[in-house]
Amino acid sequence: MNMTDMKHSRQYKAENTVIKIGNLKLGNGGFLLAAGPCAIESANQYATIAQKVKQAGANVIRGSIFKPRSSPYSFQGLGHDGLRLIRDLGDEMDILVETEVMDPRDVKEVSRFVDILRVGARNMQNFDLLKELAKLDMPIILKRGMSATYQEWLMAAEYLMVNGNDQIILCERGIRTFEPALRNTLDLAGVAYLKHQTHLPIIVDPSHATGKRNLILPASKAAIAAGTDGLIIEVHHDPEHALCDGAQSLLPSQFNDLVTEIQPYLTIEKKHIHRKGDL
Amino acid sequence: MNMTDMKHSRQYKAENTVIKIGNLKLGNGGFLLAAGPCAIESANQYATIAQKVKQAGANVIRGSIFKPRSSPYSFQGLGHDGLRLIRDLGDEMDILVETEVMDPRDVKEVSRFVDILRVGARNMQNFDLLKELAKLDMPIILKRGMSATYQEWLMAAEYLMVNGNDQIILCERGIRTFEPALRNTLDLAGVAYLKHQTHLPIIVDPSHATGKRNLILPASKAAIAAGTDGLIIEVHHDPEHALCDGAQSLLPSQFNDLVTEIQPYLTIEKKHIHRKGDL
Amino acid sequence: MNMTDMKHSRQYKAENTVIKIGNLKLGNGGFLLAAGPCAIESANQYATIAQKVKQAGANVIRGSIFKPRSSPYSFQGLGHDGLRLIRDLGDEMDILVETEVMDPRDVKEVSRFVDILRVGARNMQNFDLLKELAKLDMPIILKRGMSATYQEWLMAAEYLMVNGNDQIILCERGIRTFEPALRNTLDLAGVAYLKHQTHLPIIVDPSHATGKRNLILPASKAAIAAGTDGLIIEVHHDPEHALCDGAQSLLPSQFNDLVTEIQPYLTIEKKHIHRKGDL
Amino acid sequence: MNMTDMKHSRQYKAENTVIKIGNLKLGNGGFLLAAGPCAIESANQYATIAQKVKQAGANVIRGSIFKPRSSPYSFQGLGHDGLRLIRDLGDEMDILVETEVMDPRDVKEVSRFVDILRVGARNMQNFDLLKELAKLDMPIILKRGMSATYQEWLMAAEYLMVNGNDQIILCERGIRTFEPALRNTLDLAGVAYLKHQTHLPIIVDPSHATGKRNLILPASKAAIAAGTDGLIIEVHHDPEHALCDGAQSLLPSQFNDLVTEIQPYLTIEKKHIHRKGDL
Repeated sequence: MNMTDMKHSRQYKAENTVIKIGNLKLGNGGFLLAAGPCAIESANQYATIAQKVKQAGANVIRGSIFKPRSSPYSFQGLGHDGLRLIRDLGDEMDILVETEVMDPRDVKEVSRFVDILRVGARNMQNFDLLKELAKLDMPIILKRGMSATYQEWLMAAEYLMVNGNDQIILCERGIRTFEPALRNTLDLAGVAYLKHQTHLPIIVDPSHATGKRNLILPASKAAIAAGTDGLIIEVHHDPEHALCDGAQSLLPSQFNDLVTEIQPYLTIEKKHIHRKGDL
Repeated sequence: MNMTDMKHSRQYKAENTVIKIGNLKLGNGGFLLAAGPCAIESANQYATIAQKVKQAGANVIRGSIFKPRSSPYSFQGLGHDGLRLIRDLGDEMDILVETEVMDPRDVKEVSRFVDILRVGARNMQNFDLLKELAKLDMPIILKRGMSATYQEWLMAAEYLMVNGNDQIILCERGIRTFEPALRNTLDLAGVAYLKHQTHLPIIVDPSHATGKRNLILPASKAAIAAGTDGLIIEVHHDPEHALCDGAQSLLPSQFNDLVTEIQPYLTIEKKHIHRKGDL
Repeated sequence: MNMTDMKHSRQYKAENTVIKIGNLKLGNGGFLLAAGPCAIESANQYATIAQKVKQAGANVIRGSIFKPRSSPYSFQGLGHDGLRLIRDLGDEMDILVETEVMDPRDVKEVSRFVDILRVGARNMQNFDLLKELAKLDMPIILKRGMSATYQEWLMAAEYLMVNGNDQIILCERGIRTFEPALRNTLDLAGVAYLKHQTHLPIIVDPSHATGKRNLILPASKAAIAAGTDGLIIEVHHDPEHALCDGAQSLLPSQFNDLVTEIQPYLTIEKKHIHRKGDL
Repeated sequence: MNMTDMKHSRQYKAENTVIKIGNLKLGNGGFLLAAGPCAIESANQYATIAQKVKQAGANVIRGSIFKPRSSPYSFQGLGHDGLRLIRDLGDEMDILVETEVMDPRDVKEVSRFVDILRVGARNMQNFDLLKELAKLDMPIILKRGMSATYQEWLMAAEYLMVNGNDQIILCERGIRTFEPALRNTLDLAGVAYLKHQTHLPIIVDPSHATGKRNLILPASKAAIAAGTDGLIIEVHHDPEHALCDGAQSLLPSQFNDLVTEIQPYLTIEKKHIHRKGDL
């Protein structure tokens, strides 16, 4: 099969795919700035963090209720009980909300409670999940598998596209390498490479890529310079007691600073953080 | 949590777990020798290959009907229609049969048609799938993820065990490295390492590990010397026209030679290829 | 041994090491912009490229005469005959010049012809070479080994420092990973990480990191945003006929554009490309 | 350049290269069993270990006097003072001796004191060193670089061969991967692959490959089954106080057991451990 027949390919479609989510137009200068806790722990924790990151400038609230944890003894998330929390918060705060979905049986239900669905790195090649997500008319964040090649990642997007959903947002989150000091190795040249290969928008997750709070800012600036269409960042108001990923979560005040510091880079790259209420 | 509380650990349980499948006693000197096509393409192809590998000495027939292919344009397997084929062949030939299951919704149904279920590398951390498999009273082959650490792999087994199924057979199938000449890098020292860490049996898949027909024999001999409890090998009577993995499939005659050539190694390691009809 | 006793460590010395080379002050806002051919092929080729990159804004001319090629049949460089070419060009054009040294026997001689010496990735742990370089009072660019951890890289710098030379410029040039599409994986979060760990300046080589001409610009912008103190970029006026690394070499006009396009990023990061003739 | 013109290639020379060292004929059923300390610490330590491993069955005594240590603060070896120790021991015990050489300036001198020279993983692409070694009429053990591809490794051998020395013994010692539990990932399928690609003999270093004493035996057995022409194993009579690599060093009694346990595998593979005094 030729690249000209692959739906994700620039040879198939030269111009950027533009994904509209509220007033956010990804792929056309719009910048997705998602922030929030790794895991939603309670209504209170979720709302506290969401208010602060919205105020700082986030246009999407991130937060997981289904957690793919390496250990069965780790916190597994609130599960289905969290769905109503997410939708209510999105409505009350008038902001876009997203969450991860892991199980093909949950796709239809979860899709009714959020604005964007996320596929985690471990599920990039969970093809039955992808086929369910392909049935939706809804944006999907497709994270790169921890050792997925660009080709495999793009073919995972192709599974979604060929089965009916072309609102795909790729998300670079670092790859697994021999380096033990950081959680993963963030592949920003890959982001630039993919912008040539595909018309789909690409965002970057500096939190999982680095695993270290003090690297989120430089990694975010570098990601913008490399051409990313957005960032998804973990924020927690009390990282010491976070049930998941405390060491890589920014404090709300740090996220606030980050939004200020990335602005000059967004200006150069002509990217705008539109919010739901914007014209 | 301490290792002494982890169900997969030697510190939790010192003696080998023995898994009985027919007359095969894995973990107690029994050797699992699974062979067959990568994908079941037709009743005829499956039966042809199965007869030959049984005759050569295999005690389990491998064959997939659900295929996790990187490209949506590749052959995806016969799907549910293949289930009856598998069960009928197992019954008619009086041999154990196995297949891969990918979707948690399929687990219960598929389990009724086979003797052993297999979790592929891409699904090692598909935790919803693992939780469904944990409900079964049936052996599960759990392949190592393509860049999974030993720790992650053992914790995937722990997901099965803590949720109720301790008939877990680990399967080393190579890891992804920088080396482009072979499909993966077979990690046989890892097999030896895991025999110290866990009481669970471990088998090796030299076909996916190497991707090359002429390396299957030396890799199999080395795997036995490293302590493997079994092998799972792709065989095809017409590899040039195989719909999947032709380049790494042995011809039936080559598989026949392999069984002969590994015998001295099995003898040294005190492993026996019991068949279903054996006493 | 404690980190407080390691000479490369921020705990040993909190403030940035400032390396003065001509008017360039690395580590104090100065930005090293080295450009030139991978290999010096002839006096004419070298001068042609050098003039163009100097005009575009480079403050150091790069160019190798000793080439560590994987194959003995590839062009091995001009060798010692090239030394005079380098020094003459530096003097005539009044610009800083650098080159790679591979053999401990060559260190003293080569050092007399250039302003900066470079240690290639393959020689990062060539400890006898490092010990010779430690005897010089001269800046050394120390490239990261292709699969070196940060710790190993910093300890290679320590070999230089403990033996007497603390004018060390680290150079990130990508690491070897499983991804086949690019030559290496550029590790920009690592650059940010190292700025926390060490007081030594760090530069980035986007040419070897990516291996692709059209990624040099975004990788360079991202490197600046991540905190790099400089860039070393391959440029060739006739890449089709280059004896080495043509596919990753910029045309002089492309390098000219790059200098223009990185300027806004340098401004934000308060970095300046001082030239030899500057006050 | 075609493979048929590459001196290392099976297409250039179909039959095995046979390297004669004393009575050992590598490549013709002879098996190199080198054992000894990582580093020679003193005449007494070296002789103590050498006597025990010779008695157990080793036909070569290994031991380094030049140590490429990641840290400049680690024990760097006895250096030139150790040369006489090595030669004297070889003569007195009538056994073959080998050591590592790191610096091209040392090659000629060191070559006069040993029977086999060894190039370490960090120097596989130290081309100036290789060119010096190429001038010798003496066997060279060429270890695989820690992230070298087969192609790069074979081309390093080609550097030796094209410059005049074809007595090359490749040595697989594990590659660097993401797995943190073991020091490296031993690549035994690679050994089998290389036997097809090249006519040169290949040995295996299970000590550096695994970094763990209790994996040396299974790794050695597996290496023989995969087709290795030899093993090089670290042994120390007092590993707790070893100046280098204690955790991966066998006790002499364990080495003795190993020689017994590998014998049946050697018999199957028709390999013989000839000693210097053998007919």
